[in-house]
Amino acid sequence: MGDLTDARWMTAACGLAERGRGRTARNPSVGCVIVAGGVVVGRGWTQPGGRPHAEAMALEQAGARAAGATAYVTLEPCAHESLRGPACADLLVAAGVARVVAALEDPDPRTAGRGFARLRSVGIALTTDVMASAARDVMAGFLSREARGRPHVTLKLATSLDGCIALAGGASRWITGAPARAHAHLERSRHEAILVGRGTLAADAPSLDVRLPGLEERAPRRIVLTSGEAPAGWTAIASPHDIAALDGVDHLLVEGGAAAAAAFLRADLVDRLLLYRAPIVIGGGLPPIADIGLGALGAAHGRWRLLDARALGSDRLEVYGRGPCSPA
Amino acid sequence: MGDLTDARWMTAACGLAERGRGRTARNPSVGCVIVAGGVVVGRGWTQPGGRPHAEAMALEQAGARAAGATAYVTLEPCAHESLRGPACADLLVAAGVARVVAALEDPDPRTAGRGFARLRSVGIALTTDVMASAARDVMAGFLSREARGRPHVTLKLATSLDGCIALAGGASRWITGAPARAHAHLERSRHEAILVGRGTLAADAPSLDVRLPGLEERAPRRIVLTSGEAPAGWTAIASPHDIAALDGVDHLLVEGGAAAAAAFLRADLVDRLLLYRAPIVIGGGLPPIADIGLGALGAAHGRWRLLDARALGSDRLEVYGRGPCSPA
Repeated sequence: MGDLTDARWMTAACGLAERGRGRTARNPSVGCVIVAGGVVVGRGWTQPGGRPHAEAMALEQAGARAAGATAYVTLEPCAHESLRGPACADLLVAAGVARVVAALEDPDPRTAGRGFARLRSVGIALTTDVMASAARDVMAGFLSREARGRPHVTLKLATSLDGCIALAGGASRWITGAPARAHAHLERSRHEAILVGRGTLAADAPSLDVRLPGLEERAPRRIVLTSGEAPAGWTAIASPHDIAALDGVDHLLVEGGAAAAAAFLRADLVDRLLLYRAPIVIGGGLPPIADIGLGALGAAHGRWRLLDARALGSDRLEVYGRGPCSPA
Repeated sequence: MGDLTDARWMTAACGLAERGRGRTARNPSVGCVIVAGGVVVGRGWTQPGGRPHAEAMALEQAGARAAGATAYVTLEPCAHESLRGPACADLLVAAGVARVVAALEDPDPRTAGRGFARLRSVGIALTTDVMASAARDVMAGFLSREARGRPHVTLKLATSLDGCIALAGGASRWITGAPARAHAHLERSRHEAILVGRGTLAADAPSLDVRLPGLEERAPRRIVLTSGEAPAGWTAIASPHDIAALDGVDHLLVEGGAAAAAAFLRADLVDRLLLYRAPIVIGGGLPPIADIGLGALGAAHGRWRLLDARALGSDRLEVYGRGPCSPA
């Protein structure tokens, strides 16, 4: 499990891994920190498109200082060479690192323990399972794709206190304030694709871009849930289950409207709820989620767990993940 | 304004005043702490029905120890004698207190500064405006009645994350868990009356009692918003504005349903929102608030301010009051 110092460096590695979220599919977004004598000598994270890997980038930066150092990586170093680069386990061995600390074993069958074995075979000290939960969170897309063959799905809702996403006539600009909207754009940049329903596309023709300075190029791919044709620049899927076939999409953000949200919930394909709430009352407005086929209230309980709650300007953000609530 | 020590004793006095909330209309629920040599020698709060007053109760408890002591009271001591008891300002003078610390001047025209003047006239040291905001909160019902001629109104909602108060078919037991429901019952005990709409009365025939050990006798008076007749044990009002005429009601809790909530919001008669939210998704359920005549989103902003947010078991409670949001 490592000690507190290990946990701190791994937290830093997770922070680096976060930078690649939404840009590395189908590769995991890995973070790597190389520490020598208590000082960081190399930092790396999976680059857009998946290469270079985090370890390669960090070792390149560390140079000769990697010899005898400790490498913190959020995922087991890969053991498979490819046309796009050498195996990271081999790179770590060649650089002469004395110790490797890893958060998770790689579920990819091409590595799956063989990276760790390669390190051990040359006498490198190995500590695993350090900050595994945080690493799982930051690599949620990759892990979902590996374990379930589909992207990790976040459903975003922006509502009034009475749960409306718009006035009865459809007006929804704006419910939340500028800080919450900026946060929602940051979330867009962390997903390879955004999906809206047919009705939302027709009513709003949303651009779904990332309007944040320096992140404009990170606008995700646009998906529409429809049995009809997709307009230019959009990809159509007819059913929520079709997300499994979206190549290069490990994180999907479902942005609206009520029918699309309900379709994904009904299919049990929502892993995370992102709930922005403004301190306003609308009254008689449009609801965020259509019928999901819930037969009894009892069946609704125990499915969502609060992960984060914070203020964004005068609005509030809550993030829920799958899993039972913590006991009272 | 007093010092930190004054603020602490006044906070204690506000806590005592809180005990009378919902039981003293049309008298204010006042709290009083008498301190001699840094030790509490008397505590009092307005008793059910309005008498004895807080000062009388505290002075009775202090006895001779009140001579030379400091009395902390949440409201200016009354200057008017009545058939039900002597003026508290006279009681404090007779007891020989050396100093009085008060949070608020009494808006009741029978006192309105005359209580303070009486104390000053005999050389009692007087400090006012100590913890005034907290005192205003704890005496909200009385102050609303004095300033606006109507009760202070709290609207309670219990919803899912998507803002539903029930399944489409009406089932609402239970959305929130036991700790949140217990808190809602405690809130009932702090109001002289509870109101529901005609539809809620017909559908649920709610007892609106206080199901908390020791507080069973504090069930508020039951009001129904209807142009029809009230059943036995209920009072009917035809319009939200009729709350002004509800004798002995300084705190009103509006519990449901969507039409009643909308009627009070539309009439701008809601002072406080009590929002219980369960970590469940319903989808296509019943909304909490019907049309309130909101013409544009801009008009909805700046009306509500978050006063409190807390966890109640796996649910969350948010309390909103009137007033603009604090700036981001």
